Amino acid sequence: MSDSFVVLAHGSGGRLTHDLIREVFARHFRSPLLATQDDSAVWSPVVPKGARLAMTTDSYVVQPLFFPGGDIGQLAVCGTVNDLAMVGARPLYLSAGFILEEGLSFADLERVVQSMARSATDSGVEIVTGDTKVVDRGRAGGDGLFINTAGVGIVPPGVSLSGANARVGDRVILNGPIGMHGMAIMTLREGLRFSLPLQSDCAPLNGLVETMLEAGPSLRCLRDPTRGGLATTLNEIAGQSRVGIEVDEGSIPVPEAVRAACELLGLDALYVANEGKLVAIVPAADEERVLEAMRRHPLGQQATSIGRVVSDHAGRVVLATTLGARRVLDMLSGALLPRIC
Amino acid sequence: MSDSFVVLAHGSGGRLTHDLIREVFARHFRSPLLATQDDSAVWSPVVPKGARLAMTTDSYVVQPLFFPGGDIGQLAVCGTVNDLAMVGARPLYLSAGFILEEGLSFADLERVVQSMARSATDSGVEIVTGDTKVVDRGRAGGDGLFINTAGVGIVPPGVSLSGANARVGDRVILNGPIGMHGMAIMTLREGLRFSLPLQSDCAPLNGLVETMLEAGPSLRCLRDPTRGGLATTLNEIAGQSRVGIEVDEGSIPVPEAVRAACELLGLDALYVANEGKLVAIVPAADEERVLEAMRRHPLGQQATSIGRVVSDHAGRVVLATTLGARRVLDMLSGALLPRIC
Repeated sequence: MSDSFVVLAHGSGGRLTHDLIREVFARHFRSPLLATQDDSAVWSPVVPKGARLAMTTDSYVVQPLFFPGGDIGQLAVCGTVNDLAMVGARPLYLSAGFILEEGLSFADLERVVQSMARSATDSGVEIVTGDTKVVDRGRAGGDGLFINTAGVGIVPPGVSLSGANARVGDRVILNGPIGMHGMAIMTLREGLRFSLPLQSDCAPLNGLVETMLEAGPSLRCLRDPTRGGLATTLNEIAGQSRVGIEVDEGSIPVPEAVRAACELLGLDALYVANEGKLVAIVPAADEERVLEAMRRHPLGQQATSIGRVVSDHAGRVVLATTLGARRVLDMLSGALLPRIC
Repeated sequence: MSDSFVVLAHGSGGRLTHDLIREVFARHFRSPLLATQDDSAVWSPVVPKGARLAMTTDSYVVQPLFFPGGDIGQLAVCGTVNDLAMVGARPLYLSAGFILEEGLSFADLERVVQSMARSATDSGVEIVTGDTKVVDRGRAGGDGLFINTAGVGIVPPGVSLSGANARVGDRVILNGPIGMHGMAIMTLREGLRFSLPLQSDCAPLNGLVETMLEAGPSLRCLRDPTRGGLATTLNEIAGQSRVGIEVDEGSIPVPEAVRAACELLGLDALYVANEGKLVAIVPAADEERVLEAMRRHPLGQQATSIGRVVSDHAGRVVLATTLGARRVLDMLSGALLPRIC
């Protein structure tokens, strides 16, 4: 771009908006649908008989925009791709709405857009339609950029995943260690960045989910434990399915760096946000087959069983601690990490 | 809600987020798809043979949140419904992403959400999935609220509208007087609100578009002249179709109040944003039939022909002024109204 910073006129809808779309968004996103420049993207859908459509949205307001292991652009694509994957959908198309702050550098904007383009390619989705608004200096987080993405995908015939599907006797599976994304950002904000090897685990989970669905077509439920962490996600499932969930503290993988950072900051890793993790509820008979399939996928190598669905304490999650005690694991009740996604 | 103001914990993903969803969003939006509480809304699509899917998105950052004739909620639904309608799609489903500012009153939030629900009902769409983030005080416009909506709709078989379809000899039609939305907000901001009878003309245009498509199935292009105004929209079409467009100044309806407010503030009504207006490019043979159909619809009663597509000056718009002169009408080049949608 000829100017180095975003100005209000980039959001005016006129000449500068068109320059911005052409020179930044269209150049990196390279979608034929986006290139039509009409008010909506239009395509001929290929929906197999019995398949369903899925739609989801998320806004991303993370600060800072760039952090170890990722950035707001990668997050904006992966987060929405993952929300589609959690209902078993094959993600297809994304929209991208940008709220830019006057004064944001084009270098930063371009870095974010490139990261989105890369994440879209990695996860096999196309960014087909978008919008840009510019707000006054200091009015978009002070850091210059909010992103909303919405996504559309296709749920194959026969796939029906929901937080309401957990049944007594089912197993609870996790695809790997928790807390990396949230603590990478928290420690960066607190200035602890050099002392701990923490990186966001942000990743698109749709490939892993496809593998899991092949191995265990009777999978009940998938959910990614983002805001509110693993504890909140398990509570959501227990609540939606009106069942109890029991998890074994010792079986939940928490990296040493996450444990140390949590101790330092007085946080509980079970409530820390993740971005490349998922919880699966599977019938006991499928547990081993699903775990084996997951471990063959790069994002599931450390997949492990962490608990089971029980008939006791319906709607509640109980943690069997490493010390042999049992305690109710409640939903997150305050504000732990409000701006990590 | 038990508290009167939004706090950061409402965006934590935990208990307060769930309360907010249940007591505000789910209560007003009342969508069975939204009520599943899964990561995506999932539905069985009814896509007639030969039909196509359309997707669009817009973020809304208007200040102030409430203005004569409308509010940010109504805008967030109508704007996206209209972007779908402009490609001839029947709008079906919307997503809604909220970025709330700490300290926003629940009274204001609820007023906005109610307005969205009402506009969704009016335009026949369902808000099926959503997301809420909360940012620090002063970080979402200072006014407390940004909204993104994305929309999905179905383009009926045989309908193919695009800014690239204009052909020499086609006519340019406008559905009514311009400038009301933009000037209602501008005058409110400038404190002129008591002197002029200005109201936003924000409205869902999908009903009018259906009427128009029935009357003129060979319609070439529809576009709503929002940011950048009528002049910018005409330039977009001229550019996409590589044709010239000629419009007659005297035939463009500009309400007296808009004219007066523009004079006072030194603005050109042709660049002022609209929200319930559309430009149609139609083959000359269909002009009268389409105009008659439009005039029978409440949102097209003042529909009128304002110009034609010509072979001269390809890519440019020329205005034949009321004084008999001709001047090039360029795209908006600076920032006129950056925050009116």
